[in-house]
Amino acid sequence: MPELFTVLPPHEALHKLFTHLTPRISTETIDTAHALNRVLAEASIARSPLPAFPRSTMDGYAVRASDTFGASEAIPAYLTVIGESPMGSAPTRSVERGETLIIHTGGMLPDGADAVVMIERTQKTTDTEIEVMRAVAPGENVLQVGEDVRPGDPLLSIGHLLRPQDLGGLMALGLTSITVARRPRVGILATGDEVIDPYAEPQPGQVRDVNTYSIGGLVERAGGVVQAGGIILDNFEALYEAAKDLLDRSDAMVLSAGSSVSVRDMTSDVIAK
Amino acid sequence: MPELFTVLPPHEALHKLFTHLTPRISTETIDTAHALNRVLAEASIARSPLPAFPRSTMDGYAVRASDTFGASEAIPAYLTVIGESPMGSAPTRSVERGETLIIHTGGMLPDGADAVVMIERTQKTTDTEIEVMRAVAPGENVLQVGEDVRPGDPLLSIGHLLRPQDLGGLMALGLTSITVARRPRVGILATGDEVIDPYAEPQPGQVRDVNTYSIGGLVERAGGVVQAGGIILDNFEALYEAAKDLLDRSDAMVLSAGSSVSVRDMTSDVIAK
Repeated sequence: MPELFTVLPPHEALHKLFTHLTPRISTETIDTAHALNRVLAEASIARSPLPAFPRSTMDGYAVRASDTFGASEAIPAYLTVIGESPMGSAPTRSVERGETLIIHTGGMLPDGADAVVMIERTQKTTDTEIEVMRAVAPGENVLQVGEDVRPGDPLLSIGHLLRPQDLGGLMALGLTSITVARRPRVGILATGDEVIDPYAEPQPGQVRDVNTYSIGGLVERAGGVVQAGGIILDNFEALYEAAKDLLDRSDAMVLSAGSSVSVRDMTSDVIAK
Repeated sequence: MPELFTVLPPHEALHKLFTHLTPRISTETIDTAHALNRVLAEASIARSPLPAFPRSTMDGYAVRASDTFGASEAIPAYLTVIGESPMGSAPTRSVERGETLIIHTGGMLPDGADAVVMIERTQKTTDTEIEVMRAVAPGENVLQVGEDVRPGDPLLSIGHLLRPQDLGGLMALGLTSITVARRPRVGILATGDEVIDPYAEPQPGQVRDVNTYSIGGLVERAGGVVQAGGIILDNFEALYEAAKDLLDRSDAMVLSAGSSVSVRDMTSDVIAK
């Protein structure tokens, strides 16, 4: 039986396997919220900018930067506080020369303002006036429209394995459903006259099934869905039928048998076929 | 509000948090088959040896090693094949001087035999006789009883995160159910007047909820069970009630708010408390 010694190193075996595989990946559209560890089947593209409005990155005061030019601790700039930029809606007031609005981190910049002074760089003089102790440049402490993402920006490519931060990012852009590859169903066949259900007590010569569980765990960890095919005796017809049946309801199948020169898994006339 | 500037580096904050935490880990007993990524709450101890009988590690012939001493390609030893060790049950024949049994990888060694000759080191001369071209030492190509695991051996310790191979190993020993830590329920509260449901269209100043999904993904990845607490407005009473309610049905809670000096999440009289 020297022909049975024809074994290959793993990378060659894998290459040979892959050249014979026809991908049968099908896709499904699911809620992004439940897409952790799924694989994108369509590239995701931003449809809207992020942020969608100019946002403050600091707690402080929305200002016209030019009003602060030259300001220092020794010679502060004085601004009139005309109100507050509300969280969750657009400011109703615009900022004119010499004016400012209280603003919070993430708040929307009012019209007229082009920068934010950190609260730490200010001092209240009266209820409606502040001193600004440091100049800000236009755009300082402000996240501009589309600075994170612009409409049309490619976000994640086909084949990307979705991580927690990807889910958050997609939801931030309103991409609440996405198309992903279906989780591959991987059939597992345990084979061997000596193999028994782990819940049974082995008799001499018998061993408990391990492959269903260790390979099952690997399949689960890799994102597949396990189709356990049970334990099949060392009989070619039984193995063939079980494998055929299991493959009908799986995308791939793992079985271990005939790892050496023993031909007990096959009758000799079947080998001849 | 300088007292609000009291921030800590992450490791100090974590240490401070941990000194105030009372662990509330409860346990449950589950099927080992479904225990991937779960954390052991009891050390597992072997109750039986593995293997439970002397097993061949090769396809070949079970022999008395002394029968092969001195054998070589030039001067082979001749042995009478008296049968086959069946897979899955104990051999019915024992091996006497000058005799051998066909044996398969994983097969049970017959009484009398103490070694296995690889099939590659043999040649069939007749249907009932083989030449052995290489001597084997006692124990060669045989896995002894308890060589992998002895009864009483510690297998996995408390706190161990179960991997695919652990499931297989536990099942091999008949440890079909195990006691693990319950998956911690982690509540997530998204807070902020500006935060809206990602399925809605944001108006100026509004942003979609990201934390529920990115933190949710991190919780899920870490083995926790997400308890989404929804989006809470920047109002101390509302936040307090929502947090209390969520904590009642969670083991831990994550919320993000008040990350800077803004006090919009709390009314000033509440801060005073």
